[in-house]
Amino acid sequence: MMLIRAFVPAHITAFFVPVIEEDPLKSGSLGAGINLDKGTNVFLSVEEGHEGNIHVTFNGEPVKREEAVITYWVAERLLPQDFIGEIEIWQYFDFPNGHGFANSAGGALGTALTLAYRFGRTLLQAARTAHEAEVRHGGGLGDVVAQLHGGIEMRVKAGGPGVAVVDNILVEGYRVLAIPLGRMGTKEVLEGDVIEAIRRAGEEALEKLLREPTAENMMRLAREFAEGTGLLEGELLEVAREIDRVLSLPSSMVMLGKSLFALVRENEVKNVKALMMDLNLPYELCGIYWGRPVVGRWIGGE
Amino acid sequence: MMLIRAFVPAHITAFFVPVIEEDPLKSGSLGAGINLDKGTNVFLSVEEGHEGNIHVTFNGEPVKREEAVITYWVAERLLPQDFIGEIEIWQYFDFPNGHGFANSAGGALGTALTLAYRFGRTLLQAARTAHEAEVRHGGGLGDVVAQLHGGIEMRVKAGGPGVAVVDNILVEGYRVLAIPLGRMGTKEVLEGDVIEAIRRAGEEALEKLLREPTAENMMRLAREFAEGTGLLEGELLEVAREIDRVLSLPSSMVMLGKSLFALVRENEVKNVKALMMDLNLPYELCGIYWGRPVVGRWIGGE
Repeated sequence: MMLIRAFVPAHITAFFVPVIEEDPLKSGSLGAGINLDKGTNVFLSVEEGHEGNIHVTFNGEPVKREEAVITYWVAERLLPQDFIGEIEIWQYFDFPNGHGFANSAGGALGTALTLAYRFGRTLLQAARTAHEAEVRHGGGLGDVVAQLHGGIEMRVKAGGPGVAVVDNILVEGYRVLAIPLGRMGTKEVLEGDVIEAIRRAGEEALEKLLREPTAENMMRLAREFAEGTGLLEGELLEVAREIDRVLSLPSSMVMLGKSLFALVRENEVKNVKALMMDLNLPYELCGIYWGRPVVGRWIGGE
Repeated sequence: MMLIRAFVPAHITAFFVPVIEEDPLKSGSLGAGINLDKGTNVFLSVEEGHEGNIHVTFNGEPVKREEAVITYWVAERLLPQDFIGEIEIWQYFDFPNGHGFANSAGGALGTALTLAYRFGRTLLQAARTAHEAEVRHGGGLGDVVAQLHGGIEMRVKAGGPGVAVVDNILVEGYRVLAIPLGRMGTKEVLEGDVIEAIRRAGEEALEKLLREPTAENMMRLAREFAEGTGLLEGELLEVAREIDRVLSLPSSMVMLGKSLFALVRENEVKNVKALMMDLNLPYELCGIYWGRPVVGRWIGGE
């Protein structure tokens, strides 16, 4: 039996402006963020037969349809109408769910890519389906489009795949410190009072970043956005200030999760690791992922 | 002194529809093609000083401004207004110029990326400048956009970077045989009588490919297009038929060059190599390049 595997990078949003339209493919976000070399791996196995079932697991554990609404929506859209058989979708996440690392979009896009590969559909068909599932079910607005592009990205025109315009800041020499500290409901924030402050602050940050498109400026603007909107506060802000003491660029908050991130130069890695030990915090030190998501047959062993 | 290097894949056009508008960023092409893991490497060195000169070399040989109009146009656009110093742009091509492997776009985009990296501009600013240079000076219409995307690509909406929409066929297991046999002037073809036949045949091929987006179908449609427009004929067509005898998929003609290409399965590599020896033809056997162009500091040694 053939296994198909897709890798989709984790994506951190630094700041954003939500754009919600009636058409999901016109909905999305403006903003900036970073794709990581850790993320989501999705494996697909397909067995034709007399019964048609879809099985989904997260990190090896079977999940019910209600817990994997986006994945089921994607799968049912991309399976050929006349297909009957057993579909198994295994999703493995390098970051915990709900902490702001775009696991939902990674699972949606990874699932879509494996099914597209298997059933002769294109990248754009897969990506549009994943984006639409995300928007319809409140998973996220800009993650799929950002993950498709890679790198340190700026979403300069909102929308789904084929509509959005994404740019890159060209830079090297940084690793990304990612500290997942807790869950935050995307939906609650997007439907709350803070949304107007987010919109204003996000537009201002993007405008300033486009005037001086550097990684350094992005981190300064991300922090301004996080504090200015009141999302970064309390204990999380205290940890951010601790991190700032060992780095040349400001750390900031992952949108939307109770998580922090920072850009780390090679000569700062040692101090950062020591600080993480001192503070006893879970963390990942990742590379920036400049490629596209990958999909193909899985032979195993990598 | 710091060297900056960019790699841009060679791009083969399988079939196309030219789209020419007054605005270069709306001009481009529809069609399909393949990006290769060989292509163009550009190295940039910048030395601030009292004199401002731009020096360009192709494969190590200095070239005059008239021979490198596109590169000069890109460089003068992307250099900051107040910059004074010596700029050296070294372009190395894996394929011969004028044979249809998008060297012109590779040089334009590679030059733009190295300058953007050095002077703090973005991917999209670099790419738009390269595309505009190509369109204005008759280098090509769809190469820059295709090279930015990577893989086996379909241009489904024409235009420059940020306007065009590019899709991928998701496939593995093929290498690309590329046989550069001679030069062909892009401009002469685009301004000749054959252009109407190209437009009709290109639109039909894209429509059929989107209905069944597979690599196999792309090669069949490419060959139909090449013979149907009369571009593939005579000796070139005879060679294509020789190649067909050792491959499962039809070979076709590179648009626009007196060159041929084909998709080769692993188990066909040996026979293809033997045939190339028999026919005494120059050839490259490449991988498909699925990534984005890369740019960064050059340490050397790779």
